[in-house]
Amino acid sequence: MDTKKLVVGIDIGGTNTKFGMVDRLGNIYVEENISTPFYSDFDDYINALKDVLIKLEASVEGAEIIGIGIGAPNGNHKTKEIAFAPNLPWKGILPIVAKLQKFFPDTCIVLDNDANAAAIGEMVYGGAAKMRDFLFVTLGTGLGSGFVANGEMIYGNDGLAGELGHVIVEKNGRKCNCGRCGCLETYSSATGIKRTVSELLATGTEDSIFRHKSFDGFEAKDIAEAAQSGDKIAEKAFQMAGEILGLALANAVAITVPEAIFLFGGLAKSGDLILKPTIASFEENILKIWKGKIKIRQSELQNKDVSILGSASLAWNYINKGSL
Amino acid sequence: MDTKKLVVGIDIGGTNTKFGMVDRLGNIYVEENISTPFYSDFDDYINALKDVLIKLEASVEGAEIIGIGIGAPNGNHKTKEIAFAPNLPWKGILPIVAKLQKFFPDTCIVLDNDANAAAIGEMVYGGAAKMRDFLFVTLGTGLGSGFVANGEMIYGNDGLAGELGHVIVEKNGRKCNCGRCGCLETYSSATGIKRTVSELLATGTEDSIFRHKSFDGFEAKDIAEAAQSGDKIAEKAFQMAGEILGLALANAVAITVPEAIFLFGGLAKSGDLILKPTIASFEENILKIWKGKIKIRQSELQNKDVSILGSASLAWNYINKGSL
Repeated sequence: MDTKKLVVGIDIGGTNTKFGMVDRLGNIYVEENISTPFYSDFDDYINALKDVLIKLEASVEGAEIIGIGIGAPNGNHKTKEIAFAPNLPWKGILPIVAKLQKFFPDTCIVLDNDANAAAIGEMVYGGAAKMRDFLFVTLGTGLGSGFVANGEMIYGNDGLAGELGHVIVEKNGRKCNCGRCGCLETYSSATGIKRTVSELLATGTEDSIFRHKSFDGFEAKDIAEAAQSGDKIAEKAFQMAGEILGLALANAVAITVPEAIFLFGGLAKSGDLILKPTIASFEENILKIWKGKIKIRQSELQNKDVSILGSASLAWNYINKGSL
Repeated sequence: MDTKKLVVGIDIGGTNTKFGMVDRLGNIYVEENISTPFYSDFDDYINALKDVLIKLEASVEGAEIIGIGIGAPNGNHKTKEIAFAPNLPWKGILPIVAKLQKFFPDTCIVLDNDANAAAIGEMVYGGAAKMRDFLFVTLGTGLGSGFVANGEMIYGNDGLAGELGHVIVEKNGRKCNCGRCGCLETYSSATGIKRTVSELLATGTEDSIFRHKSFDGFEAKDIAEAAQSGDKIAEKAFQMAGEILGLALANAVAITVPEAIFLFGGLAKSGDLILKPTIASFEENILKIWKGKIKIRQSELQNKDVSILGSASLAWNYINKGSL
C-alpha cells in the first residue's frame, strides 16, 4: 500500500489548540482539539502536542507525517519562537520549534503568526495559487496583513514585518492600542467600524438603531445587518471604513505592486458592503499606471477552516519549495 | 596570465550614455561616453553600444566581460525593455536586452531603472553589503525608491514596484506631476523643498534671502546653504521635508521592516540638515517595537560614480547569486 504523505496543521489559540491532518490539496483527514490553558507548564503542553501528533499519525492507515505547521499569536518565523503572546498561559519567549523538534528530529516544523499563516494558506489552497506577489489583509478585531513578494513572505529583518494595521493614516487621529494615534486599524477593522458608528452618531443627525444601543452592545456584524436594512449611519460607517482602507491599500501597493489583494475576516464577510467603497477609493487613489490592474477580492479561505489550513500550508509551502 | 573577469556598467541618460568596466570590488578600469541623442535610430544606437563594448574589452589586457548591467530611465527588470521613457530619443517599447543579447549571446545582460540600480549598487558596493532587508531612497528632482526584502529587490507583479515618491501623505495636498495630489515627492525632494520655501514665504513673516529670488531662481542646494547660514525659512523648509519623510518612512517600514534605510541624492548630500528632522520624525512615528532599531543613513555611494557602479552592480548581483 502507498504511504499517504500528510502534514499536521496546529493552530494555537488562547482557548483551544486545534490539530488537523491535511494533504497537499487541502483535504482535512482527522481533526483534534485540546485545551490550551489546561497546561500551565509549557513543557507539559509540548508533551501533549507530541502525544496528539503520534495519535493522529496512527489514526490514518498508511499515513506519514512529513511536516508540521504551527500558527500561533506572536509566532516568529525567523526566530522559531513565540514571543510574549498576551493571550497564552506561558510568559516570555517560547522556543516551541526547538522543543518539538526533539521529538520529531526528521520532520520539518514551521512556525508563523496567524495572519501570515492565513496568507500562506491563500497561496497554497486559495485564490493566490501561482501568484508571486500578493497582499493578504485580515479585517478582524484589529487589522493584520501578510505581504508576499517574489513568491516569498516578507518577514523583514526581525521577522515581524507586515504591520499594515499600524500604518498611520490620520495624523493626530484615533488613539490606538499601540500607544500612537491614527493607525489604520482604528478605522478599518471590526473595532474601527464600531468607533466610526459612534463618531457618526455624534457628527450626524440621522436616526439609527445604534442610537438605542450601548457601544459594548453591538458588533461589526450588527452594523452590516443594519446597513443591509438601510440604516444610514451603518451605511456611512462602511463607506468610511472602505474609503480609508482603499487609500491605505493604494499607498501600500505603490511599494509592492501585488497582483491581487485578498480581504479576510469578519468585516470581509460583509462582501460588497466593504468591498465596493474600498475598491472605489483604491482606484481613485492609485497611481494611473496601476488603475484597473490590481484585483481586490474576498479571500477564498473565507468559508473554510482557515486556522487548520493556514497552519498546514506553512509546512506544505516549505515542502513544495524544497521539491522545486 | 590570468583573465580579469569584469562587467560593464552602462548608464543610459537623456544626454550621455556612460560605460565603465568594473570588477567585483567596485574598481572602475576604463570609462567611455557617447551621446545618446546622436543616434536617432534605436538600432544604430544598439550598434554603437556593441562597438563600445568590443573596444572596452580590447582595451584592458586579459579582460573578459562576463556581464553587462544597464541602468536606464523606465528600464523594466522583468520585461527587459525600456518602456516609454520621456527623456530618451526613441519612443514606445525598446527591447534593449534582446537586441544587445544577439551580439553577446553568452553574456548575462541585466536591465533595471536608475533608482533600483542605485539600490543594488548599495548592496554590492555600499553600506547594504550583507543586508537582506533594506530600503534605498533617492531624494532628487523626484523621490525614487528601491525596496530589498529577503535579499531580493521587490519588483512587483509588473516590474514597476517601489514608488514611495507616490505614496499620498496629504489628502488634497500639493498637485503632483502624476496627476494626483499630496504625493510624498511633492514635499520631500529637491523640488518639494523649493515648494515648501514658497509656502513658508506665504505663511510666515520671517525675512529670508528667498524673498529676493524668483521660484526658478534657486535650487535645493541654495536652500541648504541658506539653512547653514541661519536663514529661518530655509531651516524650516528642511524641518518640514524631514518631518513628512520621516512619517512616510515609518509607515513604509511597518510593511517591510528593513535593517536600514539609505538616503541618496541631492537632498541627502545636505547631511544632518535633512537626516536630523527625518530621523526625529521617523522615531516619533514608528511602532514601539522598532524604535531605535532601524538605521537611517546617508548612502555610501553618495560620493562615488553611482551611475556606473549601480549599473555594474546589476550584473555582479546576478553573477554573485548564481555562484552561491
